[in-house]
This record gives sequence, C-alpha cells and structure tokens, in this order.
Amino acid sequence: MKKIRLGLAQVNPTVGDFSGNLRKILDALAQGDRKGCDLVVFPEMAVSGYPVWDLANRKSFIDENARSLGEIVRATRRIQSAVVVGYVDQGPAGSGKSRNALAWISGGRIRLRQYKSLLPTYDVFLEEIFFKPGEDHPTLVWKGLRVGTAVCEDLWDENYSRKPLQILSRKGAKVIVAINASPYHREAAVKRDELLKRQARRYGVSIVYVNQVGSQDDLIFDGRSQIVNEKGSAVFRAPAFEEGLFIYDWNLSEKNPPAISLSDTVGAASEIYQALVVGVRDYVTKNRFEKTVMGLSGGIDSALTASIACDALGPERVLGVTMPGTYSSEGSWRDSEELARNLGMEFRTYPIEKKYEELLRHYEEERRKEGKTAGASGRITLAMENLQARLRGLELMYLSNDEGRLVLTTGNKSELAMGYCTLYGDMAGGLCVLGDLYKTDVYRLARFRNQSEAVIPEAILKKAPSAELRPNQTDQDTLPPYEILDEILRLYIEKNKTPQEIFKALRREKVSMKTISEVAHAVDHNEYKRRQAPPILRVTEKAWFGRRMPITNRFEG
Amino acid sequence: MKKIRLGLAQVNPTVGDFSGNLRKILDALAQGDRKGCDLVVFPEMAVSGYPVWDLANRKSFIDENARSLGEIVRATRRIQSAVVVGYVDQGPAGSGKSRNALAWISGGRIRLRQYKSLLPTYDVFLEEIFFKPGEDHPTLVWKGLRVGTAVCEDLWDENYSRKPLQILSRKGAKVIVAINASPYHREAAVKRDELLKRQARRYGVSIVYVNQVGSQDDLIFDGRSQIVNEKGSAVFRAPAFEEGLFIYDWNLSEKNPPAISLSDTVGAASEIYQALVVGVRDYVTKNRFEKTVMGLSGGIDSALTASIACDALGPERVLGVTMPGTYSSEGSWRDSEELARNLGMEFRTYPIEKKYEELLRHYEEERRKEGKTAGASGRITLAMENLQARLRGLELMYLSNDEGRLVLTTGNKSELAMGYCTLYGDMAGGLCVLGDLYKTDVYRLARFRNQSEAVIPEAILKKAPSAELRPNQTDQDTLPPYEILDEILRLYIEKNKTPQEIFKALRREKVSMKTISEVAHAVDHNEYKRRQAPPILRVTEKAWFGRRMPITNRFEG
Repeated sequence: MKKIRLGLAQVNPTVGDFSGNLRKILDALAQGDRKGCDLVVFPEMAVSGYPVWDLANRKSFIDENARSLGEIVRATRRIQSAVVVGYVDQGPAGSGKSRNALAWISGGRIRLRQYKSLLPTYDVFLEEIFFKPGEDHPTLVWKGLRVGTAVCEDLWDENYSRKPLQILSRKGAKVIVAINASPYHREAAVKRDELLKRQARRYGVSIVYVNQVGSQDDLIFDGRSQIVNEKGSAVFRAPAFEEGLFIYDWNLSEKNPPAISLSDTVGAASEIYQALVVGVRDYVTKNRFEKTVMGLSGGIDSALTASIACDALGPERVLGVTMPGTYSSEGSWRDSEELARNLGMEFRTYPIEKKYEELLRHYEEERRKEGKTAGASGRITLAMENLQARLRGLELMYLSNDEGRLVLTTGNKSELAMGYCTLYGDMAGGLCVLGDLYKTDVYRLARFRNQSEAVIPEAILKKAPSAELRPNQTDQDTLPPYEILDEILRLYIEKNKTPQEIFKALRREKVSMKTISEVAHAVDHNEYKRRQAPPILRVTEKAWFGRRMPITNRFEG
Repeated sequence: MKKIRLGLAQVNPTVGDFSGNLRKILDALAQGDRKGCDLVVFPEMAVSGYPVWDLANRKSFIDENARSLGEIVRATRRIQSAVVVGYVDQGPAGSGKSRNALAWISGGRIRLRQYKSLLPTYDVFLEEIFFKPGEDHPTLVWKGLRVGTAVCEDLWDENYSRKPLQILSRKGAKVIVAINASPYHREAAVKRDELLKRQARRYGVSIVYVNQVGSQDDLIFDGRSQIVNEKGSAVFRAPAFEEGLFIYDWNLSEKNPPAISLSDTVGAASEIYQALVVGVRDYVTKNRFEKTVMGLSGGIDSALTASIACDALGPERVLGVTMPGTYSSEGSWRDSEELARNLGMEFRTYPIEKKYEELLRHYEEERRKEGKTAGASGRITLAMENLQARLRGLELMYLSNDEGRLVLTTGNKSELAMGYCTLYGDMAGGLCVLGDLYKTDVYRLARFRNQSEAVIPEAILKKAPSAELRPNQTDQDTLPPYEILDEILRLYIEKNKTPQEIFKALRREKVSMKTISEVAHAVDHNEYKRRQAPPILRVTEKAWFGRRMPITNRFEG
C-alpha cells in the first residue's frame, strides 16, 4: 500500500534568534524536500525557541513569529514537502495572553492551526501564565489519511479532564503529528516512551513525535524524536542530543514492522554526562562567550566540571585556575595541573595565600583600632573561611571581566542543598554545571569519563572531599557520609518526603532521626543561598529550578 | 433592627511558624470574644503564613495546619464568637495538590469549609501549581442572615468564566466574608477598592474583607481590611500596615451609613516608604537577625536605605560602613558620616583604597609574569571598577559573618534594569530594599523622609549620582537623564511596551529611537545579574519577582 517519507527535523533553536531559527528551518525544509520528504516536522516553538516566558506576550515578539511563519509559508510554494512547525501566535484580543501554536503548511498556505490546549503549569513549566489554551482539535486528510496534531502536553492528558488525543481519535484521526519541547531529566526518556506507547494503544493512533535538542538556561532538551505505531511499537528513533534531519520511510501497509527498543544508556552516567556537555556548550555559545574560566581545587567537582567543559567547547576555550591558599594541600595544585595537562586546557596558578593574609591583616587592624580582638584567638572563623572562598571568586571574576570569559561554577547538588558553599565565593559565576548532580553521581560521572581515557587523576578520585579552608578539614567532619546524605536529600528534595518518612525508608541504613532532621533543616535554611545561584543545569526530575520554597520559613519538618 | 459586632483580625503571620501563628490567632480570638465580637475574621492562610509555595504539598506541613485548626476549633467551645480563618487543607487523594482553604468555626465545630476556587497564576502568584481549586460554594445562615465566604481571588472573578460571588448571591447570600493575602504595590489599594465596590453593587452583597499585614521575602502585605455594603460604600476601614484586631459594630438596619473614602496617601511617597519599612523589619525579624549592616556611599540610594532601615529596626540595629576608595570624593564619607549621625546609627570607616591597590598589584604582577600588560595603560578597566565594588562586598560579607549582621543592599530599580551594578559587589547581601523603586522615586521618598526631620544631608540630595569607580565619573556619562530613563523603563518593564511603542509614547520628550533601543537591550541583557539578586521588596505592579525572562535571549525589540 502506502509509503510516506517523513523528515523529523530535530533542531536546536535559540530563544529570540528569529533569523537564525528561520535559517535552520528553511535549510532543513529544503534538505527534506530534496530528499523527497512528504512532510518535515519541527519542534514546539521552533520559530522562537523555547521557553520564552514573558517574551511570549510582547507584541514585537509575536510579530516576529508571524513574520517567520510567513517566510515558511512562502517557502512551501516552491516545494512538494508539507511542514509542521511550532511558533507563538497572538491570543484573543484583550486576553493579555498568546497561543503556543502549531501550523501545518503546504503549497503556500496554512492548512491547519492547532493551539496547545493543555498548558503545563508545574515544576519547570508555567504556561498558564503566558498562553491561552486552545479549544479546538481540527483534523485534515493528507495522503488519504486523517491526521491530527498535538503540541507537547496535549499528549500527556492523563492528569487532565480534557483528552485531546481522544477527541482527535473520535474524529477519525489515525496519525497524530506531535511537536515538543520536552526537557531532559534522567528519568524523562523512559516516562515519555511509556506514555507514547500507552497513548498510541489507548486511542489507536500512530504518533510522530518530534522534540528539540540543545539547551536554554537551566533546561536541556534531549531530542529522541520517534515514531510509534498504533500498536505501541517504536518503529523509528532519532538519536539523543543530536541535531539533524532524520528521515524515515513509513510503510503503512507493513503489518508488524520491527520495534526499536529504547537505548539502554537511559539514565546512565554516559547520558547525564552528554546532557551536561550540551548544557555547557549551548549556554556558552548562545550567550556568545568565546572562552570560559573555572577554579580547579584539586577536588572531584572541579575536575568533572573541567572535563565536561573541555568536551563541550574544546580545551582551548577553557582556562583552569588553581588558587592555593593557606590551608591548601600540595595535591590541590599538583593534581589540578595534572588534570589540566590531561585535558589539554590552559592552566594558571594565582595563589590567594598572600592576598588573604594581607587582607586579613587589614581587617584585623581595623578591628583592633575599634578595640576588638577578632581572629586573635588563632581560631579560624566562618568569616575567615568565607574570605578565602570569596578571594577566589574575586580572582575569577577579575579574569572574567579582563578576558571576557564566562565563569563556570563547580558546586554539586549535595553542597547546594546543605549550604556547603560560599555566596560570592565558589558560587560566583555564570553557569553552575553540576548543581543538580549529587556528590555520589559526581563520582559516577567522573569514573565514566575516565573509562575511555583517564583524564581525571586517580588521586582526585581517591582523596577525601575537603573545602580546605581550615587545617585538616574534610567534608565528613560536618556532613554525614555522602552515600547516606545523598539518599536523604533525594527523598527530601525529589520525593518531597518528611523527615519521619525518610527515617522509615532508611531504617536498614540505621540513620538517626537527628541526622535526618538536621539535613532537612539545612536544606530549608540554605534557600537564601540558592536564590542567588546562577542557572543550574537540570538533570534530575526535581531540580532547584522547578522547586519553589520560601526563604523566610520557620517550618521544621 | 440587627447589630453585629465584627472583629477584623488583621494579623501578620510568619510562614511555617505554626505555634507563633496559632498564638496570634487564639489571642486575637480571645480578645474579640471578650469585647463581644460575634465573629472574628482572620486572613487567608493565617494558620500557615502566605505564600508557602511547595511547602503546601509536604505532608507534615498539611498535618501542622490540621493540628492548628483543631486547636482553634477547641477554643471556640468556650466562647461566643465565631471564627473565620484560612489554612492549607489536604487535597483529593492522589492529586498531589492541596487546598487553599477557609473554615467557619463556632461552638466547637466547623460549620462551613470553602476551598479557593479561582487560583491566581500570573505575576507573583503560582497557585495552580500547588492547589486544587474548590468547586462548591456553600452558604450558611448566621444571625438570621444568609452568608457566603470567599478566599481572595474568588472576589476577582472578572477575568474568569467561573463567578463565585454570583453563585453565592444566587443562593441568597447577603454577606460575603472574604479572607485575603493580597500583596501590596503602589496601585493595589485603588484597584482593590474599585473592585470591592463594583462587586458589592453587581451582586448586591456586603463584603467583609480581611487582609494580612507584614511581609514575606519579596512581598509586602498592606492590610487595609474593610467592610463594603451592598451599595458599594466602604463603611469601615482598618489602617494600612498596622497589625491588630479592628472592631466594627455593623448596624444592618441603618440605610445610609457614612462612607469612608480611601486615604489620599495611596501610592504616595509616604505610603511606599512605610511599605519598605515593613518589608525590612519583617525580613530581618522573621529571619531572626539581630542586626544589619550596609555600605554608605555618600549617595542617595544608601542614604534612603539607611533611613528606612533605622525607621524599621531602630538605629541601634543598623551599622553603616563607608569604604572610601581611590576615586571616592571627600563627600562620600563626610556626607555619610553626617547621615549616620542624623539617624543615630553606628558608623564605621573601612577604606578599600590600600586593599584595592595591593590586590591590583598582585593581579598585575601575575599578569606581567605571563607576559601580559593588563592595566598598564593607565586606563581603568571594567575589571578594575568591579574589583573596587567587589572589595566593598567582601568587606560587608566579612562583617556579616563576623558579627551576624544581615547585609542590606542599596541598588534601585533603574540600576538593576540597566545592569548598573556589580554582581558580588554592591549586589552582595541578603535583602535589596530599593530594587523595585526607580531612581526618581528614590529622590521622592528621600524628600518625603526629610520633611519631618532633615536626616538626609542636603549635599546627598543635590550631588550628581556617581558610582565613583573612575575619576570624575557620573551616572549620566553612560545613562540617559533619570527622568527619561525611568519613563522608558516603566513603559518597557511595567507596561511591556515595545521600543517602537515607547518612542511614540515619548514623542513629546524627544527621546531618540536609538536611546530607547539601547535601554531595552540593556534591560534584556542584564537579566543574568538580576537572576542572582537577593529578594527585592516589591512596590510596583510589575516587580522583578513577578517578571520571568530568559537569560539566553537574542531578541532585540
């Protein structure tokens, strides 16, 4: 019977870059047409980039969407391929909202418009704020098939009373073309896969699913476009994280085409590593930075951040700076130097020891004049610890301003949770690479990276984590073992469990209620630090970006 | 005919402080009962504080709400007064959401529960994320009157298809008891007043409106509880920003009770000043800080911040630090000293000049060793300017850690908009007091403060604004005059106008399209700085907190 050639244009748009995005769309469309595609499908809001937040309601922004869409319509006059593409359309007059829209275009005109009808408003999504939901679900007949369309959340109807796929299926639609900007987290691919299979079977429809790749601020998009037939089999899969036009010849008369199973690297260290590489590359590139800089402490976090940055940008665009201080071990710079050599990145040493001592002398002198005796006890105070971390931040920011380099911060999720980090110190920078990765995952990813090539020195993998802001300090002086801590944090942050519930869940690990309460309290108390963090690349289901907590908060438990 | 004694308990709860909030509620209830109140009404979520964001869906948090509510129910066994109070109730099983709830309690039992049915999800509100909407609007007969209840947004039905007041009115309700946590901005009181009058007349109901006072992170609540009769006349008004139990004897048979008009200070400098005083006091107190510290630059922003802080906390809890640098004018510390003396606050001088020069010498030496010639041209680079600002931030944070003081930052909305501020420098701190106030408003408020008592030296009011990070620098070297700038910013940020539309609106001021485009571009470009700002007290309709913009953003216009 029938064969249809489908082009899945898994592109990486940039928010607000209308000319760049349009060029990508027209190029992929021309390519698809040359290759004989009957239809080329682009992601949700490919015209504008996604998410655009309040920009969705600026008149000039909506006008630019219309202008780009006009160009796409014009392009289809000269070609055979039809196009499905996402953009921002104007909303009803006076509503103050716009539409998250899809257009099916062919032969120089728009054949169908679909407005997203389920507007996700939870976690990292806030679409009810910006968009007016669609209320109609039109279909069209194409190549003898009745076809419907859907925009992202319209597929995820299980928690809504409105069921877009059911409406389309009742209208006789056999194929649903779905455009998406579905962000990555380590469990997303499996959930998405299960949903597509379930929905295809439930409504007896095939689903052509196209998702964007790349990243935008905190959010990473993994692509993984696919085609699921009405039996719930994935008959085609595009790769994860890779931009491109992926073509599939769909033989509709084939009864049992071979099903392709989901890659077994889903959620694995290799996948998360790749996601972070994409996140770093896009943040740096889309914000037009040529070069980056980061502190190398000799610890595992900065080592992993450096290897991700080098893999994302090439080592020539990454500068590592070691800033030994009064309490730094010899290993801190020796191991960092070895790391930098292994990665091929530029490496510099700017010691803070003397700067710290000079500054501290000024501070102490100022206080002596006032009759105070700060620091005179020989004790290293919190103020003195933070001063060291902040002098490193100062050094990196000077470098940033002087050489136009984006500062990458190196803190992980366990540290950000516990406040084991210094505002304006190690938190100073433009992008936090590992901030959604627990410390135990940091080790996992480092070991993964070393499998192909041992770039991270063994000494860094083996040493006890330490901030080195006091003599002989290690993280475990003040924190529970990371294996335990991370499990408490996962249950508290991602599963929103109470300390009591965590205590029960971890009974076998014999964690005390006191430890759990202290951890929970530290997480709540340090909300003020995270409020001032740069964007943090999201890789877990509940990242800081999608978690909203008050700073002023006396609740304990 | 009938007289009813109403107690409007305009309280200031603290988020998560269940025992403290309960004590306030029981105290006001006992007081109301002693004074013969028939009904004592508390604000929305008075039990838990508002807003609580994701806490609303933690099991233990909902349990604490239930426990407090149980105590209130128990308290009504022994008294005559009925109570209306707001709290968080559990949602339907499996919904993952809770309810923003109201209970009418008397004689030891709950007579009516009302779940908020319109969940504001725009600007500073995100309630759809946390709550499940109510679907019923029960009424009860009380003192021979049919009465309905409403939770905040349920009054504001004009942009929703669901009309809670209409439903209640059709059920015969003559009085609506409405509980609120309606945040302050300079135009809020007028809008609220007009709405209450319009709705009372439209539905032929009297409205007993109780709102919370105090502040929570970025949001300030102004109280202004009131009673509007069915003819749309405000027959009673509680004061703004003042915590207390306000009692009104409502004579329902009185045909034309005198209407009380809204205070004419609405939106005035005095009111905004008072709002900021409340914001500072509550943030400091609720976060359990004893003392604060701030930099005094000799400029108008730090002078106004200091006077607000002294009025909020008492001058003994505010330390002003002047940190003269290489390019500081003599006035910077002399005027600051006079300001501090006038306010009665502690004042210290910690010069950064020598620290800056020493540190810069290190930086330059490091670069010389690498064969670079940074700074050798005698030009003062951006890196050097920022270094000075950051050394001041370092100094204040050292003080903060050393003495347990919260750092107040002093930047205004015009500066934050334009990025005329330094990350980790003057932006370093726990609360930004003036960040939602344009520069021209800063002057207005300073002049207002000086009316009663000339605390801000005339020299500070008169000098040209300058960051003093280069010789002879003034803001107007790089920025348009503030009168023009602020008008562009207001249209761009608050009214979401495009540069073209702003050009038209400001035709009479003869502002060039180039200037407007540059301003718009600067606002967009500096999103990354604001992302790392501390909470910023909200006083305008569109504050940074309610504005969501991407950092990565190539849209211009």
